[in-house]
Amino acid sequence: MINRIRALKKSFNKELDGYVIINQPNTLTNQAHMLYLADFSGGTALLVPKEGESTLYVYGVNYEAAKAEARNCTPELIKRGKDVVKMLADQVKHLKLKKLGYDLMAIQSYEKIAKSIGNATKLVAKSDLIWNLRRVKDEYELKLIRTAGQLTTEGMRAACNNIKTGYLEFEVAAEIEYEMRKRGSDGLAFETQVASGPRSAYPHGGCGERKLKNGDLVVVDIGAIFKNYRADMSRTFVVGKPSAKQQKIFAIVNKAEEEAFQKITDGSKASEVDATARNIIKRAGYGEHFVHGLGHGVGLETHEQPVLNPTSKDSLRVGNVVTDEPGIYLIGFGGFRVEDTVLVCRNRSERLTSGFDSLNVQ
Amino acid sequence: MINRIRALKKSFNKELDGYVIINQPNTLTNQAHMLYLADFSGGTALLVPKEGESTLYVYGVNYEAAKAEARNCTPELIKRGKDVVKMLADQVKHLKLKKLGYDLMAIQSYEKIAKSIGNATKLVAKSDLIWNLRRVKDEYELKLIRTAGQLTTEGMRAACNNIKTGYLEFEVAAEIEYEMRKRGSDGLAFETQVASGPRSAYPHGGCGERKLKNGDLVVVDIGAIFKNYRADMSRTFVVGKPSAKQQKIFAIVNKAEEEAFQKITDGSKASEVDATARNIIKRAGYGEHFVHGLGHGVGLETHEQPVLNPTSKDSLRVGNVVTDEPGIYLIGFGGFRVEDTVLVCRNRSERLTSGFDSLNVQ
Repeated sequence: MINRIRALKKSFNKELDGYVIINQPNTLTNQAHMLYLADFSGGTALLVPKEGESTLYVYGVNYEAAKAEARNCTPELIKRGKDVVKMLADQVKHLKLKKLGYDLMAIQSYEKIAKSIGNATKLVAKSDLIWNLRRVKDEYELKLIRTAGQLTTEGMRAACNNIKTGYLEFEVAAEIEYEMRKRGSDGLAFETQVASGPRSAYPHGGCGERKLKNGDLVVVDIGAIFKNYRADMSRTFVVGKPSAKQQKIFAIVNKAEEEAFQKITDGSKASEVDATARNIIKRAGYGEHFVHGLGHGVGLETHEQPVLNPTSKDSLRVGNVVTDEPGIYLIGFGGFRVEDTVLVCRNRSERLTSGFDSLNVQ
Repeated sequence: MINRIRALKKSFNKELDGYVIINQPNTLTNQAHMLYLADFSGGTALLVPKEGESTLYVYGVNYEAAKAEARNCTPELIKRGKDVVKMLADQVKHLKLKKLGYDLMAIQSYEKIAKSIGNATKLVAKSDLIWNLRRVKDEYELKLIRTAGQLTTEGMRAACNNIKTGYLEFEVAAEIEYEMRKRGSDGLAFETQVASGPRSAYPHGGCGERKLKNGDLVVVDIGAIFKNYRADMSRTFVVGKPSAKQQKIFAIVNKAEEEAFQKITDGSKASEVDATARNIIKRAGYGEHFVHGLGHGVGLETHEQPVLNPTSKDSLRVGNVVTDEPGIYLIGFGGFRVEDTVLVCRNRSERLTSGFDSLNVQ
């Protein structure tokens, strides 16, 4: 694994002489930034100066673990009653940093930091610096995401085997999650979705106590985590024999997913990949029922950069990992989504989740 | 369930004429605030003016679900390409709101909102308003947390039955999570901890691939979710027969937990409850190894208000739900923690998780 803190410093150029991440309030993104850079998720703040050692500020609860496990930085204990912002500001003054970058920050932290560091240091919003690193996965990361993809695919196999008349949605989820966990998944990338019947028409239909009935559409959306890296996969099932209308709409979504997949390659514009899927659905007359973007990056977070939707400015690059997930949602009838996690390659890209490429009649 | 938006409006007094929550970036707290107030977690922003209808701003992906499920407010669609901050600002101007409260907000959103709404409206940090409501659970909430507590206790029973020589940590986690899920848990309040051997000495020791060995300490920390409400429970196990030293330290932690529990009652100062447990551990000579606070509130979030630690200013009130979780962590030897979720009552409080009150010799 590369020294990512060094890579971040290189991207400062002349614009910055330091970078700060502060996880107050706790946001998934700031936590993932620290995990990415320092290989440790239990820090409260990370200060990366242009020259010299970076400092990871850690409360007592995680300090011993940080000393043993954090990389490329020095853990510093936040003693009880001490203010992490004050500690950070003292270090910034000591190092005479003039331009300090940051990504996401709460207004509360921002005002406190700005006041503490005084006029000699300027805070500069520079969200791209870390994201430019995080969106291109290296071989080490890809190995982990591949495993997460395999575990997720095994979870979908369990879904396939357990979607039957009379099962409750959460019972199906129990079998999916058990299968992934037993095989080595470290957790769930997001709440498992097993949305059947009317709630399948909500893209985030969740998972409840509904009993599966013959003829139900069931949208299953799941993700395993392997050593902090995630995958994301959706399939649409029918309980029993699919109707002609179910088959027709499913075929449209499946075609949209496959043709968009063909466009996912080094240099493609994300908005054009989205348009490929969207136009197929539009031409079939369901355009207004594809109510979300085509996809998103996947890595340490389930939703990260790049973004694939009609207004995205992103282009895809080798090493990006993104979802391809068109859907059609008909209130009162049900929903359809097919989703794979895809590694962007130079020519033909690679699905990291796969299989079950039909309505999967039970 | 009470109309919480009405309760929030009542707390404005003369200081505010509106309140805004904006979930950009996504923080668990802002999401939980919206879920609490509008019974729907898929919104991007919520505007609560003093008079008249509240507005929940929702992207297309969740709009149909919001129309069906959000309460006490009107969902408004954020159309593709529209800026939610601009929509919010227009509504604030239209309603002529002068003082708008908020809790957590990213500096990026804050600056954009401040600029959009102009000088006629002042943004006022007022985090207490929602927390004063959220920290006191009503009967409806308590019913759900009670169930989450029962499911968590059943998960701990599965831990108890599966901690055996030769099992891998994640295999034990699989059995715990399967048990909770099958019985109706909606997910995990946090990543399941099954930390054995050396990593039991890290309070957040996680769960990996380590194989359990005779004599290992194993700290298990788990939480179920039932209809969005959570519970939190830890137990310490020994694989095989506990040593005299393991038994001695366990007894100290167990005593600290029990005596602190006796102090958890309406009107107690949180810092004094913490001191009760801390003094027992200090007097036994392990003070520096109790490296975290005694506890925290539990509800829609796993960590919420009130906070029980030496610097807390909180007092406990009937209807608070808090954890009681002293621990002793010895690097190179192993860790010990006992934790229950406790409902604060007028006299004797009530454990919502319970059982397994020994080292649970396997």
